[in-house]
Amino acid sequence: MLPYSVILGNLGNTCDRFLSSGYKEALPKEEMVRQAAEIEGVMGLELVSTWDVTPQNTEAVGEMLDAHNLSCVSIIPDLFGQKRWGKGSLSAQNQSIRQAAIDHLFECVEMARTLNCPLINIWPGQDGYDYHLQSHLIEERRWLTEGITQVAQQAPDLQFSLEYKPKEPRCFSYLARASDTLLLAKETGLDNVGVTIDTGHSFVAGENVSEAVVILQEYGKKLFHMHFNDNHGHWDDDMMVGSVHFPLYVELLYWLKKTGYSGWYSMDQYPYREDGKGAIEASVRFLMMIDRLLDESALAELEHLLQEKNPIRTQNWILETFYQ
Amino acid sequence: MLPYSVILGNLGNTCDRFLSSGYKEALPKEEMVRQAAEIEGVMGLELVSTWDVTPQNTEAVGEMLDAHNLSCVSIIPDLFGQKRWGKGSLSAQNQSIRQAAIDHLFECVEMARTLNCPLINIWPGQDGYDYHLQSHLIEERRWLTEGITQVAQQAPDLQFSLEYKPKEPRCFSYLARASDTLLLAKETGLDNVGVTIDTGHSFVAGENVSEAVVILQEYGKKLFHMHFNDNHGHWDDDMMVGSVHFPLYVELLYWLKKTGYSGWYSMDQYPYREDGKGAIEASVRFLMMIDRLLDESALAELEHLLQEKNPIRTQNWILETFYQ
Amino acid sequence: MLPYSVILGNLGNTCDRFLSSGYKEALPKEEMVRQAAEIEGVMGLELVSTWDVTPQNTEAVGEMLDAHNLSCVSIIPDLFGQKRWGKGSLSAQNQSIRQAAIDHLFECVEMARTLNCPLINIWPGQDGYDYHLQSHLIEERRWLTEGITQVAQQAPDLQFSLEYKPKEPRCFSYLARASDTLLLAKETGLDNVGVTIDTGHSFVAGENVSEAVVILQEYGKKLFHMHFNDNHGHWDDDMMVGSVHFPLYVELLYWLKKTGYSGWYSMDQYPYREDGKGAIEASVRFLMMIDRLLDESALAELEHLLQEKNPIRTQNWILETFYQ
Amino acid sequence: MLPYSVILGNLGNTCDRFLSSGYKEALPKEEMVRQAAEIEGVMGLELVSTWDVTPQNTEAVGEMLDAHNLSCVSIIPDLFGQKRWGKGSLSAQNQSIRQAAIDHLFECVEMARTLNCPLINIWPGQDGYDYHLQSHLIEERRWLTEGITQVAQQAPDLQFSLEYKPKEPRCFSYLARASDTLLLAKETGLDNVGVTIDTGHSFVAGENVSEAVVILQEYGKKLFHMHFNDNHGHWDDDMMVGSVHFPLYVELLYWLKKTGYSGWYSMDQYPYREDGKGAIEASVRFLMMIDRLLDESALAELEHLLQEKNPIRTQNWILETFYQ
Repeated sequence: MLPYSVILGNLGNTCDRFLSSGYKEALPKEEMVRQAAEIEGVMGLELVSTWDVTPQNTEAVGEMLDAHNLSCVSIIPDLFGQKRWGKGSLSAQNQSIRQAAIDHLFECVEMARTLNCPLINIWPGQDGYDYHLQSHLIEERRWLTEGITQVAQQAPDLQFSLEYKPKEPRCFSYLARASDTLLLAKETGLDNVGVTIDTGHSFVAGENVSEAVVILQEYGKKLFHMHFNDNHGHWDDDMMVGSVHFPLYVELLYWLKKTGYSGWYSMDQYPYREDGKGAIEASVRFLMMIDRLLDESALAELEHLLQEKNPIRTQNWILETFYQ
Repeated sequence: MLPYSVILGNLGNTCDRFLSSGYKEALPKEEMVRQAAEIEGVMGLELVSTWDVTPQNTEAVGEMLDAHNLSCVSIIPDLFGQKRWGKGSLSAQNQSIRQAAIDHLFECVEMARTLNCPLINIWPGQDGYDYHLQSHLIEERRWLTEGITQVAQQAPDLQFSLEYKPKEPRCFSYLARASDTLLLAKETGLDNVGVTIDTGHSFVAGENVSEAVVILQEYGKKLFHMHFNDNHGHWDDDMMVGSVHFPLYVELLYWLKKTGYSGWYSMDQYPYREDGKGAIEASVRFLMMIDRLLDESALAELEHLLQEKNPIRTQNWILETFYQ
Repeated sequence: MLPYSVILGNLGNTCDRFLSSGYKEALPKEEMVRQAAEIEGVMGLELVSTWDVTPQNTEAVGEMLDAHNLSCVSIIPDLFGQKRWGKGSLSAQNQSIRQAAIDHLFECVEMARTLNCPLINIWPGQDGYDYHLQSHLIEERRWLTEGITQVAQQAPDLQFSLEYKPKEPRCFSYLARASDTLLLAKETGLDNVGVTIDTGHSFVAGENVSEAVVILQEYGKKLFHMHFNDNHGHWDDDMMVGSVHFPLYVELLYWLKKTGYSGWYSMDQYPYREDGKGAIEASVRFLMMIDRLLDESALAELEHLLQEKNPIRTQNWILETFYQ
Repeated sequence: MLPYSVILGNLGNTCDRFLSSGYKEALPKEEMVRQAAEIEGVMGLELVSTWDVTPQNTEAVGEMLDAHNLSCVSIIPDLFGQKRWGKGSLSAQNQSIRQAAIDHLFECVEMARTLNCPLINIWPGQDGYDYHLQSHLIEERRWLTEGITQVAQQAPDLQFSLEYKPKEPRCFSYLARASDTLLLAKETGLDNVGVTIDTGHSFVAGENVSEAVVILQEYGKKLFHMHFNDNHGHWDDDMMVGSVHFPLYVELLYWLKKTGYSGWYSMDQYPYREDGKGAIEASVRFLMMIDRLLDESALAELEHLLQEKNPIRTQNWILETFYQ
C-alpha cells in the first residue's frame, strides 16, 4: 500500500474571501487528529505552523500523533497566513520581514526535529506580485533564494521541499511552476532542497503533472513531496481526487513508481462545505483503487503500450482495466 | 442502446495551420462510409456540404448510406471552409456574401430533403471577430439572426440546430455559448430553430455541460443535437471521449435522459495523427459503458443522491458503480 | 462627465482564504464614506447589507451619505457572507433557507426605499455547486427564478439587477454569464429585472464584455448596472481599471454610449494590499481619460472605422488617439 | 532605435484547420521581402526553411535580402510543417525520423552560414503529445536534448535558440515554458544554446513575460531571441502588438533593457485576414511609441517606482507617461 497522509487543517474549518468565519465549525485539534487516524490508509500528518503546531505545543502535538500512530510527514511553515507576510515573506522588500521569515523557518526546523519530521514543505504563497511593474523581479527572486539557502544549509538533516503554485493569493507567484521552482532549488546548490508537486497547482499551471514528475526526477531526483487533489482546471478548487479527471491519475501513479518516488502521497484539499474526514477518505479510496488495479501485469501492459504509442489502444486498455 | 452517429470527415484526413496537407492520407468517401458502418453502435452519419455532399452527388451519397444502413443525421453547411466566408458568412458586412450564405443554406435544405435528413447543423465558424472595435456588434448579430430566420421559416419540415463555440477560427464567435445561442434561437420565433451542444466547445466555454443541457431544455426544449468529444479544458482538442474527464460524462448522460433528449449521440473528433475509425470506436465504447452501468437501479440511486446533495456519498457511489 | 460610484467596502479591509483577518486594518464606516466623497468624479455609493447597512442603521447611513452629497446607487444584499447561505440562498435545497433569503431581500427593499436607492444588485454567490452530480440542476434554477420573481414583483418601484460571475465562491454559479442571466431575467417576465455586468467577471467568462453589453441591450434593454475592474483574464483579481487591458475599455465605453446605457459606472475592486481610496481614484482617472478622448470627433471617426472593419486602421487610430 | 525584424511568412498567406487553402492569396517571395523592407524600423528577416529558404535557393535569397538591406536574423528550421514530423521530429520514437530532423538542422546550419545569419531558432512544434499515457516522457525528452546537443556542439559559431510554447499543434509540448526550456538548454552544457521568448506563447503559459525574461537572464544570460505579438490570453492568436494588453509591454521593454538583452525585436504574427505588411507596421509603431516614451527620465522614474512598490503610484505614472 502507498503511504498516504493528510494536511491536518483539511479536517477543520475553511473560509474564503466572502465568508471569513468559514463554512463550518472549527474542531478541536485532538478531534481532527483522531479523525485522520481513522481514515483507512492514512499513516501521517502534515502540520501548518502557527495553525497546528507552535514552539510551545510541539511536544504535546507529538504525543497526540504518537497516540494515534501517525507520523509527522511535514511541517508547513506559515509564511502566508499572517498580516506581516502580506507583501511577501522571504522575498519581502523590507529586510526585517525577510529576517522574520527566516527566523520562523528556523523555528520550524526545531519543531520538525522534535517531531522526528524529515521535511519542511515551504509554500511562500505571499511571495509574488499582482501588478505589472510592481516589483523588482531580480532582487526579490534573489532574496527568496538566499533565505531558503541560508536555512537549508544550516539544517542538512532535513529536506526542504518548495511547493509551487501559479497564483493565489498573489496574481503571480515566484514559485509558479515545476521548472522555475527546480531552477531555484538547483541555484541553492544544496542536495536537501527539492520540490513539492500539488496536483491541482500543476493543473492550473497547464502542466501535465506526470511530465512535471519526470522533469523533477530527471534533473536531479528533486521530487521530494506530493499533494493530491483535483479541480476543474482553471483554479485551485482543492476537490476530492478523481472528481473531475481520470486517466491522468493513472499516468501519475505510473510515473511516480517508474521514477522511484519514495515520498508520501498526501491529501491536500479544502472541503469548504463538506465533512473533511469523508472527503479525504474518498480521495484515498480513489487512489487505492488505481494502485490496486495497476498491478504487475497491468504495469507490464502499460510499458508495452508506451512503446506502441497508440492512444487508441491505450484508451481501450484504460476502459478494460479500470471500468466495470 | 443510444443512437450513435459520427461526422464523416472524422474518418478522413485532418490538417492544422502548420501542416496544411494534413497528417494522414485522404481516404475515398466510400471507404470512410464503410468504416463508419463497421463501428459497433453507429447508425448514422453527419455530412459536411462541399466536403462530403454537394447538389451534384447527393443521390449517389444517399445510395452509399443506404447500402450501409446508415441514416443521414445532419447536414453541416460549409459556412467556414471557403475563402469567401473568411470575414463572415451570414453576418458578413458584404451583402452579397450574406446572400451567398443564405443560398448555400437553401442548397443544404434541398440536399437534406433528398437524403431524408431531418436536421441542418449550422456552425457559423467564421461569424465573429478577432480585434476589439473590429465589428459592428449590433448589425452583425442582427444579420446572423435574419439569415437563419429566413431559411428556417421557409423549411419548416427541417430542424435548424445552431452549434456554438467560444472561439476558433475567430477569437470571438457570435454563437459562443449555450445561452447566447439560445437567445438568438428564441429571437427567430421559430419552433424549428434550436441548439447543438458540442461537449468540447462547452468545456472551453467554461460551462458545466449538463447545466447547458438543462438550460436549453428548460427554456423551450431547444436541445436539438449533441456532439461528443473530450479535451484538456482550454481548447477544442477534439479528443476521444473519456480520455480526460470522467464523472462529467455520467452527469451528462443522466441529464440527457432526464430532460427527454431524443436526438443523436454523435461523435465529433479530430484524430489528427490517429486511425479515425479506431478513435470513434473507442469513444462509442466509452459512452456505451456508462450507459450500460447507468441502468434502472443506478438511476434510482442517483435520483436519491441528487436529493441528498452530499458530494462525498456521490463520489463514493461513482467509485463503486463504475470502477472495478 | 460619467456618473461614477464605488462599492463602499472597496475602501475597507479585505481578506482571503489564507488570511482571514484581512491584509489591512478595518476603517470606521464614516471614514470610508468620507474617503469615497473625496475621490474626484465619485457621486454615489453601493452598500452591502449586513456589512454596510442594516435595518437598524439605515437612517444613520442615509444621513452620512447626504452629508457627503453621495447617492445610494445600489444595495447589494448579503446573500454570500453568512454561514447560513453556505449551500445556497435563493436556490438552497432547504426551504427555510430559501425563505430567509427572500425575507432578507425584502429587508433590502425597505432599506433601499429609505435611502432613495433605485436598485437592488443581487449577486447570489453561493448559489451554484462544486461537484458533478452534486445538485438537481432543474429544481435549483427554478427556485432561484421564483425567489427573484416573488420579490421583484412586489417591489415594482425598484430595479433588480442580477450580477453574474462564472465561479467563486462556487466552482459553477447559476448566474454565470451575461446570456444565462438574461434568460433567467426574461423568465421572470418582469420589466424591473435586469442584469449587472462586472467587467472582471465577464473577462473570466471568456466574453468580450462589449458584446455582453450589446446582447443585454439588444434583447430588451436589460443592462441595468456596471461594475468596473481589471484582471489577468483567468480569475476575478479585482484590480485597478486599465492595469492589464487597454483597447477593450475604449470599445466598452463606446458601446455603453451607443446602446444608451444610462446607469452608473461603479468601481468594484479588492485592493487587498493597497490603499483603497487611491486604487479607486486611479480607476476613475483612467476611465475619465478614455471618456475625455472619446469626444464627438473621435466618436465619429470610430463609427467610420466600424464600417471599414479594418483592424489595422483601427489599431493605428487607437495609437494616435490615446497614446502620446 | 530598437532592432526590429519580422518572420517573412507573416507577410504571406496563412491557413487554419478549417480553411487549408488560407484566407488570402500567396505572394511571391520577392514581393514579401520588398514589403518587409518598406516597414519603418524593420532591418532584418527570419526565414523558415523549406517555406522560405532551401539549400537550393540560399544564395538567391541572400541576394534578395542584400538588395533590400535586410539582415537574416534567424533561420527557423521546418520541424513542424511536414507529414514526416507529425509524431515528433527530434523526439520521435522512430530513430530514422530523429536522424532526419538532425540532418535538417545541419542543413539549416549551412544555410545560416551562407546567409551570415547568427542564430537558428528551433521551434519543435510537433515534439510533444496529446493523450495521457501516450508517450515515454523520459526517453523522448532525452532524445530531444541529445539532438539539439549534437547539432549545437558541431556549430559553435551559431546560436541555437529554443522557442517554447505550451501547446499547439500538440496538446502538450516538450518545450512548453521558459523554465523547462532553460533546464533543457542548460542540460546540453553548451553556451550557444539558449531560449526564444514569443510573447504570446508566454501569455498562454500563464507567465508574466517580464519574469520569464528575468529568469532566463538571471540563470545564465540565456535569452537569445524575442518574438512579439499579442493575444486574448488563452490561445496563440498571433495578433498585433498592443491590441489587447498595455502595461505589460512597458514592463517587458524595461526588463529587456535592464537585463542587457541585445538581440532582435522580431514580429511574429498570423494576420489571417489582414494585410500582412500593415499588421507588422502597426506592431512596430506600437513598440516604437513605448520605446520613445521610455526615455532616460522615464526610466529613472521607473527605477524609483520599483523601489516604492506602490502599484497605485505606478498606475498613475503609466497614465501620465503614456496616455494623452
